[in-house]
Amino acid sequence: MTEALKLGSTIGILGGGQLGRMLSVAASRLGYKTHIFEPSANPPAAHVADQVTTAAYEDADALAQFANAVDVITYEFENIPTSALDILETLRPIRPGREALRVSQDRITEKEFLSGLGLKVAPFSAVQSDEEMTAALEAIGTPSILKTRRFGYDGKGQARLNSEADRAAAFADMAGAPSVLEGFVKFSHEVSVIAARGVNGEVACFDPGENVHIGGILRTTTIPARLPGTKRMDAVLIASQILNALDYVGVMGVELFVTPEGLVVNEIAPRVHNSGHWTQNGCAVDQFEQHIRAVVGLPLGDGKRHSDVVMENLIGDDMDRVPELLGETNVAVHLYGKAEAKQGRKMGHINRVKPSEK
Amino acid sequence: MTEALKLGSTIGILGGGQLGRMLSVAASRLGYKTHIFEPSANPPAAHVADQVTTAAYEDADALAQFANAVDVITYEFENIPTSALDILETLRPIRPGREALRVSQDRITEKEFLSGLGLKVAPFSAVQSDEEMTAALEAIGTPSILKTRRFGYDGKGQARLNSEADRAAAFADMAGAPSVLEGFVKFSHEVSVIAARGVNGEVACFDPGENVHIGGILRTTTIPARLPGTKRMDAVLIASQILNALDYVGVMGVELFVTPEGLVVNEIAPRVHNSGHWTQNGCAVDQFEQHIRAVVGLPLGDGKRHSDVVMENLIGDDMDRVPELLGETNVAVHLYGKAEAKQGRKMGHINRVKPSEK
Repeated sequence: MTEALKLGSTIGILGGGQLGRMLSVAASRLGYKTHIFEPSANPPAAHVADQVTTAAYEDADALAQFANAVDVITYEFENIPTSALDILETLRPIRPGREALRVSQDRITEKEFLSGLGLKVAPFSAVQSDEEMTAALEAIGTPSILKTRRFGYDGKGQARLNSEADRAAAFADMAGAPSVLEGFVKFSHEVSVIAARGVNGEVACFDPGENVHIGGILRTTTIPARLPGTKRMDAVLIASQILNALDYVGVMGVELFVTPEGLVVNEIAPRVHNSGHWTQNGCAVDQFEQHIRAVVGLPLGDGKRHSDVVMENLIGDDMDRVPELLGETNVAVHLYGKAEAKQGRKMGHINRVKPSEK
Repeated sequence: MTEALKLGSTIGILGGGQLGRMLSVAASRLGYKTHIFEPSANPPAAHVADQVTTAAYEDADALAQFANAVDVITYEFENIPTSALDILETLRPIRPGREALRVSQDRITEKEFLSGLGLKVAPFSAVQSDEEMTAALEAIGTPSILKTRRFGYDGKGQARLNSEADRAAAFADMAGAPSVLEGFVKFSHEVSVIAARGVNGEVACFDPGENVHIGGILRTTTIPARLPGTKRMDAVLIASQILNALDYVGVMGVELFVTPEGLVVNEIAPRVHNSGHWTQNGCAVDQFEQHIRAVVGLPLGDGKRHSDVVMENLIGDDMDRVPELLGETNVAVHLYGKAEAKQGRKMGHINRVKPSEK
């Protein structure tokens, strides 16, 4: 096994949003410094980082300087331009590795990868032309959902088709971007597994959480999820299989639909995940620290939960509830330091902690 | 009641050690930035602060620039030079206020203040000359402990007298500094209460923890402390009385000896306290966030504990145990990012979380 990165080393993080911010705090807890690379000024992560580079992903000099100033590179989002990765990887290790990014940056590549592992995914069909749309609708039918192959998040780049009548509007929504038509999976609920894999191949999973989305945006994650013991094991095995297949290093979020026929993989995210925020107050080692441990080569935490938690996102106007939430018992408030509370913008989250009886 | 400081405001923190570091992280969680003032270069808190000023407490210009750049000032240690406070307080509010600093900076002032409230303290007598030493020994006897009146911490500036024979060595140890001879209190164990008071006068206490010191340095704090219900209430009332008497704003550590005759106040610290580190993993709102809430004028958390915890300091060579500790279940590791692990130096701590049964 590789030696762990020396205490006091610097972890470079691509992206300065709330995930980078919470990764930075976790890094400090283990005695590491962070250096944030982010195109926009004054990002949330900058407030708790040792160094910040404000530059575009097209700025080759800035990328090289950043890489030379850090000991290892990780990221808080998967849509990093390939050209930037080409420069960075010649200078420092990037963890998780490029294969995970390649697979997760494109919905079709991702689904083909997952199917190739023998895992269930929603039926899907590539759509770039009107002809392909016709073929896809014939194969998949409605209800279904048309999504851009790349750069989608929080329900963006998605259009639902309840019937053939929605075809034109949905197709127009994609604005010519390469897309995929996905069949609707009849699921009772969605769960996600936050899984981690270390540099030596050890895998550790947190308990599955149950997710509720509204308008394509995650609202709550509840731990424990409604899931019988056998499916709980299935969920963990699916996540482990994915991580091992990618020779993955770091934390990954794996979203699963629970159906009578078993678990269907919705999507994977090669990074810490919103549905893993509950771990901050439910576990001694949270997903952010788990990711840092993996990235620097330290042993992973075992994912054990000491308390049950309900995580709730604070989106847009939810910020008005903060004064009240601060007064509630066993509620941990986590704000992201964003200046403006726009509609649909994730401003923070709360973890309602319920002492477990074990 | 005063309005709370606006989100995104900056909290100035005097002192860049581990307490400033953990205060900075807590501030970020509530959406605030921090600015550290610290004479030494590359202090632990700098890694997670938005801004850092490296300057001496005698540098009037640097102090004024710092004050003008922040919205409120707090501190991580009580021995801030009076001249610096004189400059800072004309520019920004300092919380906790100067009365708390005046009282806690001098052991005799502190004991007189506590006695004045009707609280029990160890017998004490001022010592600056050989004659006063004679008088003090007559009044207090041995075993007793000679301490400098000011600037003591972690057992530094203290000499124990087991008998009259230790007199000369102990007196020499003080090197002429104004001192105090304290009688030995026969206690079964020491507990501490981490108490907080808001700008509107509300008081909230965390559950008392039981402390074990070795060589004058805190080794462990165990929650809950061995303390019958009535004494638990006494402990909280004593802490509240002290905070109210000082019109205090912020978190204070109150160390108490448990004796058959009741609780005796050992000392108070007008800041977050090592014996409160357990709250990071035992409560939804920890002592650092509680302090920030008080300082910015937000409502306090109620101090409720969701899990039992044993906190253990990592001192000097204890750092060699970190790889092993990282592998233990329900152990949260908190490292301070200090470059060198000197003997007696606090390098980090761990919180062993035990899920509570309630």
